Amino acid sequence: MHDNRFAVVARVGDRIADLSTPRPIIDEDRLAANISRVQSYMDEHGLNFRPHIKTHKIPALAAAQVAAGARGINCQKVSEAEVFAEAGFEDILITFNILGPQKLERLAALNDRISGLKVVADSDITVDGLSAYFSGRKPLTVLVECDTGGARCGVQMPEQAVLLARRIAAAGGLTFGGILTYPKPQSAEAVEAFIQATLKQLTAEGIACSIVSNGGTPSLFDAHLVRSATEHRAGTYIYNDRQMIRMGHCTQDECAMHVVATVVSRPNADRAVIDAGSKALTSDLQGFADFGLVVGHPEARIASLSEEHGVIDLSACSGERPQIGEKLFIIPNHTCVVSNLFDTMVFHRNGVVTRVEDVVARGLVW
Amino acid sequence: MHDNRFAVVARVGDRIADLSTPRPIIDEDRLAANISRVQSYMDEHGLNFRPHIKTHKIPALAAAQVAAGARGINCQKVSEAEVFAEAGFEDILITFNILGPQKLERLAALNDRISGLKVVADSDITVDGLSAYFSGRKPLTVLVECDTGGARCGVQMPEQAVLLARRIAAAGGLTFGGILTYPKPQSAEAVEAFIQATLKQLTAEGIACSIVSNGGTPSLFDAHLVRSATEHRAGTYIYNDRQMIRMGHCTQDECAMHVVATVVSRPNADRAVIDAGSKALTSDLQGFADFGLVVGHPEARIASLSEEHGVIDLSACSGERPQIGEKLFIIPNHTCVVSNLFDTMVFHRNGVVTRVEDVVARGLVW
Repeated sequence: MHDNRFAVVARVGDRIADLSTPRPIIDEDRLAANISRVQSYMDEHGLNFRPHIKTHKIPALAAAQVAAGARGINCQKVSEAEVFAEAGFEDILITFNILGPQKLERLAALNDRISGLKVVADSDITVDGLSAYFSGRKPLTVLVECDTGGARCGVQMPEQAVLLARRIAAAGGLTFGGILTYPKPQSAEAVEAFIQATLKQLTAEGIACSIVSNGGTPSLFDAHLVRSATEHRAGTYIYNDRQMIRMGHCTQDECAMHVVATVVSRPNADRAVIDAGSKALTSDLQGFADFGLVVGHPEARIASLSEEHGVIDLSACSGERPQIGEKLFIIPNHTCVVSNLFDTMVFHRNGVVTRVEDVVARGLVW
Repeated sequence: MHDNRFAVVARVGDRIADLSTPRPIIDEDRLAANISRVQSYMDEHGLNFRPHIKTHKIPALAAAQVAAGARGINCQKVSEAEVFAEAGFEDILITFNILGPQKLERLAALNDRISGLKVVADSDITVDGLSAYFSGRKPLTVLVECDTGGARCGVQMPEQAVLLARRIAAAGGLTFGGILTYPKPQSAEAVEAFIQATLKQLTAEGIACSIVSNGGTPSLFDAHLVRSATEHRAGTYIYNDRQMIRMGHCTQDECAMHVVATVVSRPNADRAVIDAGSKALTSDLQGFADFGLVVGHPEARIASLSEEHGVIDLSACSGERPQIGEKLFIIPNHTCVVSNLFDTMVFHRNGVVTRVEDVVARGLVW
């Protein structure tokens, strides 16, 4: 797919400045530093680290994360797990309630194939669906997802977590693997309290809980405050983005992904239009009022996006205003959704292409 | 690509209700009715109609639009035009300022291949770039893009349009093809005034203007109010979406696209979580406060999206609340960006799959 039907994405040795735009690119040195920095933190605190591959969807990057010391990987979909199993990964946690015959069938095939497949559940219906499918087969490891304040999935109370753990432990075809949460940032205390209460009751019932899995990039460097956690999951840290800067996780210089765009119109003094719209940057605001950070033009506001145009408001710019044909480097609000738009990712060192990787796990049937 | 590496997307005759989710689907009857309704309007008013393929990116759908009476098609990118030229389309208008050697080279190859390629320009820089590339080759037809209030690309004043038309007419390798606008909705009077002033000055200078191209779905049924227009461009009308309902272009029953999602969690009485997040619905708000319309549950609010989860607030729901495992049919805020996320599109009639089409023009190098 590097040869994208009518055009080559990039060749090793090409200058980034010469590539056709819009194009997301990854800085190799920043990528390596992000992997190393987070793994060092986890090692220092004795936490197993399980990178979430949803950010990059590229097996070679997960291999680099594991080579640095990560223990297993995290996927969000059965299709992602299939791709990474094919690439040789054995310890894969899918953090999703799996429902429906197609997904269950593929999950069972995957479980037969790799040694360390794990999923989560937060309801009797999900657990019973898994059990009905896995009874009489190689057992599937299931963790109970707990809502410790993130307000997405998960049981609401430690008592419910224990009830569900007991149900999993008693169910045919299933093994209780532990508990998991995807908390809101800066909530270590509440997370720890929920986990402690759950562990206490599990212990009282004699149910062993081998994994306590915590997650998220924004508060990653506070992961050690959740003392009962045995592992931490995070995805965005590998590329970083504008949201992670705001959350205090990283600096602008630690953002490995840029979307390169070209100024294609300057209709008036205060407006520039670029060739990156919602089909390149996505509409993810992540709490911002505009759609990305233009490196070197901090006062420029990507005020609106249509599908293939981004409209930049230059009215606050005191310095040089970008001219037609000029290339801009944009730190997206959210890298993970940008990855999902492109079939290939271009990597560079100091502006020279080092490799082009297929974003193998995008665009697959869930 | 129908066989999506590890799983088949759908087979003809499958029931939509049995497909793995999340999955965008297109209702064949609504699709046909949308094509017919808009073409009839254009025919009635003697307007050439040029559908924008960015909404579907599927040659078979453009063929249906042309079979109904459309004159040529509209693309937004060189790569889209390449795909549709390969599929046999000859009259292609690319409504974008084309800059940079890679795109210009491919544009020239495309112009050699088809009879009716046209692009737009709104600056001397774009025109001079095109002229430098096309001098000595088969001439390229260039329209002047005018900003009649849409505040994206385009010259700001009729005088500038005339200056640029003159520059194109005088440039080597280029032919002046006319003027074009992508106006804001409900602005027919302002659009007509801009066009009239431009045409008057072009006539005075003896510059023929064969195409006057107006565009947009929201005010499509007011297209006849722009009396000087020779053609109208629109994309979204073929599928329609929640935004088009709000703009008064269509009803809910005229929306041909749904995203089918499964309820995977009901953590509490007021919250349902579905398996469609920003990687299925996109984060396009289009002025709404939530991320799509749940058919049959008008009081349900898709309050937030993470990548593979959608969190639905059920607190206002007076009727039945969806249960785990239940499938929901969602009208997305914006169909065009949903198309761009999926490699294949599933079509159905009365809930039974009729065909599966590759979204051929997505994911290509610009």
